[in-house]
Amino acid sequence: MRPIIDSARLWARLMALAEIGATPAGGVNRQALSDAEIESWRLVAGWAREAGVEPSTDPAGNLFITLPGADRALAPVLVGSHLDTQPTGGRFDGVAGVMAGLEAVTSMAARGERPARDIVVAAWMNEEGSRFAPGMMGSEAFAGLRSIEAIRAACDAAGISVGEALDRVHAACTDLPLRPLGFRPVCYLELHIEQGPILEAEGRTIGVVTGIQGKKTYEIAIEGDAGHAGTLAMAERRDALAAFARIADRLYGHIGAHDSDVKFTIGRLRVEPNAPSVVPARAVFSIDLRHPDDTVLNALGAALEEICGRSATPCTAVVKPLVDAPATRFDESLRQLIARKAEARGLSHQPILSAAGHDARPLATLCPAAMIFIPCRDGVSHVEHEWAEPADLAAGASVLADVLQDLCHGHG
Amino acid sequence: MRPIIDSARLWARLMALAEIGATPAGGVNRQALSDAEIESWRLVAGWAREAGVEPSTDPAGNLFITLPGADRALAPVLVGSHLDTQPTGGRFDGVAGVMAGLEAVTSMAARGERPARDIVVAAWMNEEGSRFAPGMMGSEAFAGLRSIEAIRAACDAAGISVGEALDRVHAACTDLPLRPLGFRPVCYLELHIEQGPILEAEGRTIGVVTGIQGKKTYEIAIEGDAGHAGTLAMAERRDALAAFARIADRLYGHIGAHDSDVKFTIGRLRVEPNAPSVVPARAVFSIDLRHPDDTVLNALGAALEEICGRSATPCTAVVKPLVDAPATRFDESLRQLIARKAEARGLSHQPILSAAGHDARPLATLCPAAMIFIPCRDGVSHVEHEWAEPADLAAGASVLADVLQDLCHGHG
Repeated sequence: MRPIIDSARLWARLMALAEIGATPAGGVNRQALSDAEIESWRLVAGWAREAGVEPSTDPAGNLFITLPGADRALAPVLVGSHLDTQPTGGRFDGVAGVMAGLEAVTSMAARGERPARDIVVAAWMNEEGSRFAPGMMGSEAFAGLRSIEAIRAACDAAGISVGEALDRVHAACTDLPLRPLGFRPVCYLELHIEQGPILEAEGRTIGVVTGIQGKKTYEIAIEGDAGHAGTLAMAERRDALAAFARIADRLYGHIGAHDSDVKFTIGRLRVEPNAPSVVPARAVFSIDLRHPDDTVLNALGAALEEICGRSATPCTAVVKPLVDAPATRFDESLRQLIARKAEARGLSHQPILSAAGHDARPLATLCPAAMIFIPCRDGVSHVEHEWAEPADLAAGASVLADVLQDLCHGHG
Repeated sequence: MRPIIDSARLWARLMALAEIGATPAGGVNRQALSDAEIESWRLVAGWAREAGVEPSTDPAGNLFITLPGADRALAPVLVGSHLDTQPTGGRFDGVAGVMAGLEAVTSMAARGERPARDIVVAAWMNEEGSRFAPGMMGSEAFAGLRSIEAIRAACDAAGISVGEALDRVHAACTDLPLRPLGFRPVCYLELHIEQGPILEAEGRTIGVVTGIQGKKTYEIAIEGDAGHAGTLAMAERRDALAAFARIADRLYGHIGAHDSDVKFTIGRLRVEPNAPSVVPARAVFSIDLRHPDDTVLNALGAALEEICGRSATPCTAVVKPLVDAPATRFDESLRQLIARKAEARGLSHQPILSAAGHDARPLATLCPAAMIFIPCRDGVSHVEHEWAEPADLAAGASVLADVLQDLCHGHG
């Protein structure tokens, strides 16, 4: 089968982008709406213009590259991911999907092909949520799930608001036309590194993503009483950390060990007054609970609240639910199309569940959506030594380009 | 029996000291070697000079007030406690003993009495150990149990060393003569609130302290691996906080519930990286273990180390023993003297074991030592609402003054 993209160019461009925000340990620190992100926009927009396709932006700070179709009134095919990284992130998370999309439209344009409908490549603003929390701001605003006003109000650790940072980016990129926020695409596609060990372990190249697991987060505050470590009798204590240990041990046992799909994490714990000779008066902790099956996720969420309440005695526990994101199921016919295209290229593939959240989650509320995963070394991501093999990237990008080709020509 | 002290002055001065580092909830936050402690030194040294007795300091950051005796070659009687508090401490812990000592020598000086030997009132540096760990730095250095170098090297959470903080205090108090470290006293006495419920429950005013329960402290570091809360399978995790919860729950059950005398506290816990969506890589916690019986204390210490090691899997736990203080027994004849003086004033009294550690512990390795306890409301201490009744404080301080009188005149 003939190559549909220039995989050497794709790799070279990815490595060139990795220089922007490069860390000494070989990773990338390219925070949302930072100078580094502006620099990456300039590079990507330059490559787009070189290929004769048009870059633009929108009020949510998303970057778009549009290859115009024959009938511009038809709903476009949308493909994308993000250019921002974690503070000690890698060279592939996000940027691989943007560049695979750009490579598909660049190759198409170079062949003089005109798709039946527009193909739009998007780099969504602040997927990671590390500078401004929570993440997926650009894609959620695009999908109408969050207001521009709410997004602009969020501040980073230095007190700079998204609004200020966004105006700065737009001021630095006046050559990019500003398009209105949002449109209805015919479908959405996203290529991403797996960020998990399954494809590598199974020796498969293409992951046809079935969906994204659901996620609930909580903050739990245990209230007890402070006291002198040397004098207060054990029987008289209301020790908030003892209650935490009891609750947490039961949660790890009942929730964390429920089945092999569940992910249960207590990532943050704050103890007060946190002094060696004082019985702890207060313990506040976070829970991150994920499961692909909403029924199970909801049942575990209810069980978790019940365990916290019941095991806190003689202290009290107050459970505050934060995020409640149901599981996403990707479009069945898009998944079949991805699998057929992988098959046609002789690439091994398998269905796979995404454990991590992606921009495809908000997009899936707007239109049929699907994702293509490629393997990453040792299954690790959000680290500086994150790595994907050039051959796997070329394979994933080729399947993406094949799928786009089909969607823009094969269908009406 | 005529009053030997001015108990109204004593109370007024205690309440004046409670303004230094006062917390909104009515407690005191006066950390060792802080600006607040410097301010409390100024106030106490001023009161000493007013009474014509001499303040001084030493290389360990202890504050001394000396009422000179007729024969200055005789070993002095030493009386003391501390001015530093827990971060959310009260108005009596430590400072009551210093002020009772100061009141005794102030009253003696006001009556124009010259004791046979010097009486020295000491405010020991960093008894609490909350800013710089472990505590009792000043009294242990004075007793030759810890070197000045080792003490100066300890750092607070902000990275400031005891050495730097101490030099700063001395630089701020150049009006205080610097005396050499340590001397051999004829005996040591300390008044303190009980920090437990026994005197209040028994309706007694004076506790004649028999000794101090033994104490061991530890710092335990659990090492695991960080990971993505959404992608890393539970079976693959080395979650340091999950290991902590398992270890801690077993320790509370096996060590903390061993018998009704044991006191087991995990007061401090630090989690890394402590981010909601990251599996914890590291958990460092403190253990404070106390028991009046050294045999039991040693057995529990060994059991504790074994539980930490065994229950850490798949993480690893490193147990670092810090304090290892065997039980202290106070001097029999000093205890009889305290009981006789209480009796003479018609005050109810009883023998009592100190559950908490005090500066009297290191001092007891240097000379005969004893302590006087007074009741505190609900038996609570190390809390902002810690409270002692003015009448109980006056009673305890009077007994202390009577004992000092006897030791300086009655004996040679």
